Amino acid sequence: MSKDDSPLFERVALIGVGLIGASLGLVLKRERLAGYVVGCARTQATLDKALELDIVDEAAADPAAAVAGADLVMLCTPVGTFAKTTATIAGHLKPGAVVSDVGSVKQAVIADLSPLLPDGVHLVPGHPIAGTEHSGPEAGFADLFKGRWCILTPPEGTDAGAVEKLTSLWTRAGMEVEVMDAAHHDTVLAVTSHLPHLIAYTIVGTAFDLEESIMPEVFKFAAGGFRDFTRIAASDPVMWRDIFLQNSDAVLDMLACFTGDLDTLKHAIRQGDGKTLEDLFTRTHAIRKGVIEAHQD
Amino acid sequence: MSKDDSPLFERVALIGVGLIGASLGLVLKRERLAGYVVGCARTQATLDKALELDIVDEAAADPAAAVAGADLVMLCTPVGTFAKTTATIAGHLKPGAVVSDVGSVKQAVIADLSPLLPDGVHLVPGHPIAGTEHSGPEAGFADLFKGRWCILTPPEGTDAGAVEKLTSLWTRAGMEVEVMDAAHHDTVLAVTSHLPHLIAYTIVGTAFDLEESIMPEVFKFAAGGFRDFTRIAASDPVMWRDIFLQNSDAVLDMLACFTGDLDTLKHAIRQGDGKTLEDLFTRTHAIRKGVIEAHQD
Repeated sequence: MSKDDSPLFERVALIGVGLIGASLGLVLKRERLAGYVVGCARTQATLDKALELDIVDEAAADPAAAVAGADLVMLCTPVGTFAKTTATIAGHLKPGAVVSDVGSVKQAVIADLSPLLPDGVHLVPGHPIAGTEHSGPEAGFADLFKGRWCILTPPEGTDAGAVEKLTSLWTRAGMEVEVMDAAHHDTVLAVTSHLPHLIAYTIVGTAFDLEESIMPEVFKFAAGGFRDFTRIAASDPVMWRDIFLQNSDAVLDMLACFTGDLDTLKHAIRQGDGKTLEDLFTRTHAIRKGVIEAHQD
Repeated sequence: MSKDDSPLFERVALIGVGLIGASLGLVLKRERLAGYVVGCARTQATLDKALELDIVDEAAADPAAAVAGADLVMLCTPVGTFAKTTATIAGHLKPGAVVSDVGSVKQAVIADLSPLLPDGVHLVPGHPIAGTEHSGPEAGFADLFKGRWCILTPPEGTDAGAVEKLTSLWTRAGMEVEVMDAAHHDTVLAVTSHLPHLIAYTIVGTAFDLEESIMPEVFKFAAGGFRDFTRIAASDPVMWRDIFLQNSDAVLDMLACFTGDLDTLKHAIRQGDGKTLEDLFTRTHAIRKGVIEAHQD
């Protein structure tokens, strides 16, 4: 609550109440950050579930109705849906409203949404870097964001007050907030998240296509490394489809670096060149230390 | 203890007391599976540490001395060292002794060691599929093997009693033991462990080579998937160098499948073909379920 005991936002519309939307709804309640929360979802089953789990105060199937009077509209659906949703809600937004999102891609969000929003509505794109491999409102929990990073990528000239309110929101959710350029965000995330997911999806698919005599044993002996990949590759298919399509340039750039490096290792294995292998494996130790020192594990 | 209260092996020589050797030493003590344990390592510091941590009863720098009188010799060093060590110890092995190992590659072990061992010594190659990203005697703990699989790959004609004793050993360590053909082992492990490690090492190396403006943020925002890869890529460099060199055929075969599949995805991203992406990502869900149902997570 702010000093005068009024919530940070009088009325919040959550467009999408899956893992992230539901978790945010629970945070809004716990921290009393919103006076009233309206949740929007495509199916009645999801809406019922969101009400039943006390994630929202009200459920609306129509996004235009959901955003009416909202001080904050948070887009929590796969990024590929944002443009269509924004076109639908644009004429129904309250003047001065803040529109934000939780998408893993930021340049495309700005490019797609900025032209659609009326003057006086503030776009503050955001990316809370938190998640699990589970989906849906039942997967949500208020501590999902705790100790994680949230990146905000407001375009130049964005209202400072709107950025500040979003910063307060995610800080109260337990996150450390960092503001950066959208292009930089997309490059960094292509390395730390998008490429790892692409590779995990690929290798799990590769295993899936093996002869039937091997498959049961791939499950059985998954503990040797494969298991971690299956967890990553269990993430929401539509959400990830959209991420790759919307951050294709950065992902393809990183993929080119990766496949070049993989070729070098393939060559080393074929040639029996142990030195090249050992040198790389020794260097990657240092990176692990870096991650641990950055308190990300 | 067996029914007559005598330990499973009177005298055990552990060649190597790193993560696996040390953990096994602790199991031998806890379960009273060995009357006496001699540990062998290259450096005095490691030998001192093994004694200090009560992993072994006696420390020997010379493998030939370590194996003298041993009923079980367990090779717990990187697989690339096995041939040289076996050549050194062959003439000092007790008749009837069992020689086994914990290496992640099995065909090469049989090919390299069988010709070196004298008649009457029983080679029972093994692979306890357990580990962490940590190395050295300090990393060992007796519960490392609990609930995990151990694969034994005795060549045709191996003494059944020797296989049975190894099965008892790993069962008492808490493992489920499965006997299979060495070639089949190497194919399955290439998928579930070797290829995932190769890819994790590669991607972490790729990140390492990025411009300096990105690196600190790669650490910072590693929670999005990259973190899991850094853990895998922190595994022991020499051990993994040897695995790739000694299981190169199976690894290169799997790598070819993987890179073919990755090309398909790259093409889909470039073409904006969301259906191909979503179809694969939906299929990989099923695999995760398979892993969970196989109780490997």
